[in-house]
Amino acid sequence: MQLYSVSQLLKQKNKLPEVEVKGWVRTFRANRFIALNDGSCLNNIQCVVDFENTNQALLKRITTGAALHIKGELVESQGKGQNVEVLVNNLEILGDSDPEHYPIQPKKHSFEFLRENAHLRTRTNTFSAVMRLRSKLSYAIHKYFNDSGFYYMHTPIITGSDAEGAGEMFNVTKLDAKNPPLDSNGKVDYSKDFFGKETNLTVSGQLEAETYAMSLGKVYTFGPTFRAENSNTSRHLSEFWMIEPEVAFMDLPGNMDLAEDFLKYVLNYVLEHNKEDLDFLEQRLINEEKTKPQAERSDMSLIEKLKFVVDNNFKRVSYTEAIDILRNSKPNKKKKFKFPINEWGADLQSEHERFLVEKHFKCPVILFDYPANIKAFYMRLNEDGKTVRAMDILFPGIGEMVGGSQREERLDVLKEKMAVLDIPEEELWWYLDLRKYGTAVHSGFGLGFERLVMFVTGMNNIRDVIPYPRSPQNAEF
Amino acid sequence: MQLYSVSQLLKQKNKLPEVEVKGWVRTFRANRFIALNDGSCLNNIQCVVDFENTNQALLKRITTGAALHIKGELVESQGKGQNVEVLVNNLEILGDSDPEHYPIQPKKHSFEFLRENAHLRTRTNTFSAVMRLRSKLSYAIHKYFNDSGFYYMHTPIITGSDAEGAGEMFNVTKLDAKNPPLDSNGKVDYSKDFFGKETNLTVSGQLEAETYAMSLGKVYTFGPTFRAENSNTSRHLSEFWMIEPEVAFMDLPGNMDLAEDFLKYVLNYVLEHNKEDLDFLEQRLINEEKTKPQAERSDMSLIEKLKFVVDNNFKRVSYTEAIDILRNSKPNKKKKFKFPINEWGADLQSEHERFLVEKHFKCPVILFDYPANIKAFYMRLNEDGKTVRAMDILFPGIGEMVGGSQREERLDVLKEKMAVLDIPEEELWWYLDLRKYGTAVHSGFGLGFERLVMFVTGMNNIRDVIPYPRSPQNAEF
Repeated sequence: MQLYSVSQLLKQKNKLPEVEVKGWVRTFRANRFIALNDGSCLNNIQCVVDFENTNQALLKRITTGAALHIKGELVESQGKGQNVEVLVNNLEILGDSDPEHYPIQPKKHSFEFLRENAHLRTRTNTFSAVMRLRSKLSYAIHKYFNDSGFYYMHTPIITGSDAEGAGEMFNVTKLDAKNPPLDSNGKVDYSKDFFGKETNLTVSGQLEAETYAMSLGKVYTFGPTFRAENSNTSRHLSEFWMIEPEVAFMDLPGNMDLAEDFLKYVLNYVLEHNKEDLDFLEQRLINEEKTKPQAERSDMSLIEKLKFVVDNNFKRVSYTEAIDILRNSKPNKKKKFKFPINEWGADLQSEHERFLVEKHFKCPVILFDYPANIKAFYMRLNEDGKTVRAMDILFPGIGEMVGGSQREERLDVLKEKMAVLDIPEEELWWYLDLRKYGTAVHSGFGLGFERLVMFVTGMNNIRDVIPYPRSPQNAEF
Repeated sequence: MQLYSVSQLLKQKNKLPEVEVKGWVRTFRANRFIALNDGSCLNNIQCVVDFENTNQALLKRITTGAALHIKGELVESQGKGQNVEVLVNNLEILGDSDPEHYPIQPKKHSFEFLRENAHLRTRTNTFSAVMRLRSKLSYAIHKYFNDSGFYYMHTPIITGSDAEGAGEMFNVTKLDAKNPPLDSNGKVDYSKDFFGKETNLTVSGQLEAETYAMSLGKVYTFGPTFRAENSNTSRHLSEFWMIEPEVAFMDLPGNMDLAEDFLKYVLNYVLEHNKEDLDFLEQRLINEEKTKPQAERSDMSLIEKLKFVVDNNFKRVSYTEAIDILRNSKPNKKKKFKFPINEWGADLQSEHERFLVEKHFKCPVILFDYPANIKAFYMRLNEDGKTVRAMDILFPGIGEMVGGSQREERLDVLKEKMAVLDIPEEELWWYLDLRKYGTAVHSGFGLGFERLVMFVTGMNNIRDVIPYPRSPQNAEF
């Protein structure tokens, strides 16, 4: 007798006299119909129990969450909602699930309740679909870069450098917390710490990725990054995953081409491979939006939004043009923006980004050539002396999806910029070396993985798209 | 004119009148032959300069490490060592490389020197080959699991639990290092820390992976893990990457099948896709071993070792049998083992593991059913009450490659074990929940990624198979 996954059984075209399947009970109804799930797909296999010839005590143990081992016959289903079902010949309870105490009952649970039970929440349709999509997106990312000749690089998590300045960092230490050693100035003496200096959790692998791009040509990172910021919102995590490609000899237009091609590829990949999960999440979102006032509902359904990105060319617009458009826009004139746009140099907010994408251009937008003083030190200064070769890619609903730039490859310009920003050269001697020995134009971008998963799954809270979210006051599990 | 990578050019079968290529100079000899590399493969493209018609000042700037943009004609090579070469029509220096200061000269550098210049070491053949293989192995791992119906899962890096006990942990904190808040007992008050409790860097994602296996069925992790142990050896890192698959309804023999199939797949994958890099590293190892005394040389070449694993069935031997074999072995009787084997219960050392693989069985070995008291608390207790369903997979040269087990699925037995080891139930309430609600047999294993990369590349120091190694006193870059 052969053991099948639920996904394998549901794909069978013919009757099978002898099948075995193991999984967990989602529901048991009419003392007869078990909906069994094993995580291999969204749908359950219906297993039909001959209740008249089954021990009563055994029937009582078929409760939501119980683990079962079922042997039987796969036949065409008589009922609606499924093509095949298993007529149960033999049923073994592998693990009981006391209905008095099991938290995941077959009813609607709040996401907040499920966050508190994050170890069990993938036993629901919503979270199993989200995590299957998260996994498939990860795979699509690796496949895209591998097939395009990129090398995957693991940049360090613990870092001795805090020069990147992308955000507040966590300290990593083995010093005695209560009585740390002090130096002669009365400061904590990190030379006595594990690594012989102060160390933190990384905020980005970009600078290290540049070192590999300048030898291996095309590389990318996909790893965890950290922010010790006290922002308890539905869009921030203290620990999240980032994808950062970096390519030698590539300029900003090449960077735009890469990002657009990459994003379309991974979205297409899940549209092709995870239709069942996407259909389910689309319906979930429709139901959720029904409870909202009309104004807060989105114009597009989940899958329409994905196709909006896949099917449209990304419009490339300079920051300066975008400011003009925004300044002269209806919502600006009618003072509908929370942050009015008055002059060049303003940092764009989510409301502006969404206006450009959803109302003005009606396609994904790549903004480029931002004012130098609102962007990072390593971005390539343009000939105008006041803008840098930065780009942000804006998506409907969510705003910024990707941020990237051509990097400053000129040693003298980079050093000047670091001096202005008080970044010590000794901290980044190795980064400067790249500009001393065989420097060249190069570019890259960063994509916060959880934002992509939110976009693809339609989940509104970032804590619901990562298995065990970390945020201020929260490091459970 | 089309831009080609070096790898694309080397694969051309026909002449091409107009090609463009960008890369870095590896060598420039006879004022004429540039060996140009762009990281796309191990080999360089030879670019031939018409030195009589080229500006002298320009020729002087063609130095090792300089970045070039070359336009020319691709022709059959007249010389030995390559099929095609580029006759240069136009040469632009993108970035100079001052030969007086550039650390990576075309000569043999010590690995120690290259570790100090880890930002430049992938500009050498050895390290570019190692890192290309590291990347391809990562991809093969993701591909294997994806194609086998596993879901990739990101387990948390910052953890509030220290119950797994796999090793010393790093503390992650935002508290004021010099004047931490104290509670009424005079202890550091972690309730005031960022996460509201004491947090550390993870030592393993296994326990969290189990939660997902018990809902999604087949999952795996591939992420960074940490050990704050003060061991400054060539086999230990403070930060390294682990792969941990976990499968519901799978017992120990199934776990062995999975691990064997998986390891053979990933090794075959690089044998097929990275022949050039493997041939180079094999030759490197042969040259290195020539400098060693005969007794320290290995019996097999690098590729022979990989084929030894791919072509042999893994021999499955119980710990008890292995102890018998070792006790009665020649080296044990002749007191050649540093740690003599006298009795059942002894922990096996690398010398014993290598004897079993290389001398006795002459194939990879899976040892199983270890004494309970030398293994972790979560391993399934056998009916004999003294052994657990653990397995270690032993490879030639390197010893243990994989450690895994069937997990204890019985709530009462698990609780007893935790009580004996003083692991508080409150710490692992969520882990215990898996045994309360729909428990079932499940198993998994862990593979230290860097050990696999060492095995595949023949590198002897673990610091040479990860981009930026972290170890005691070392967190540079």
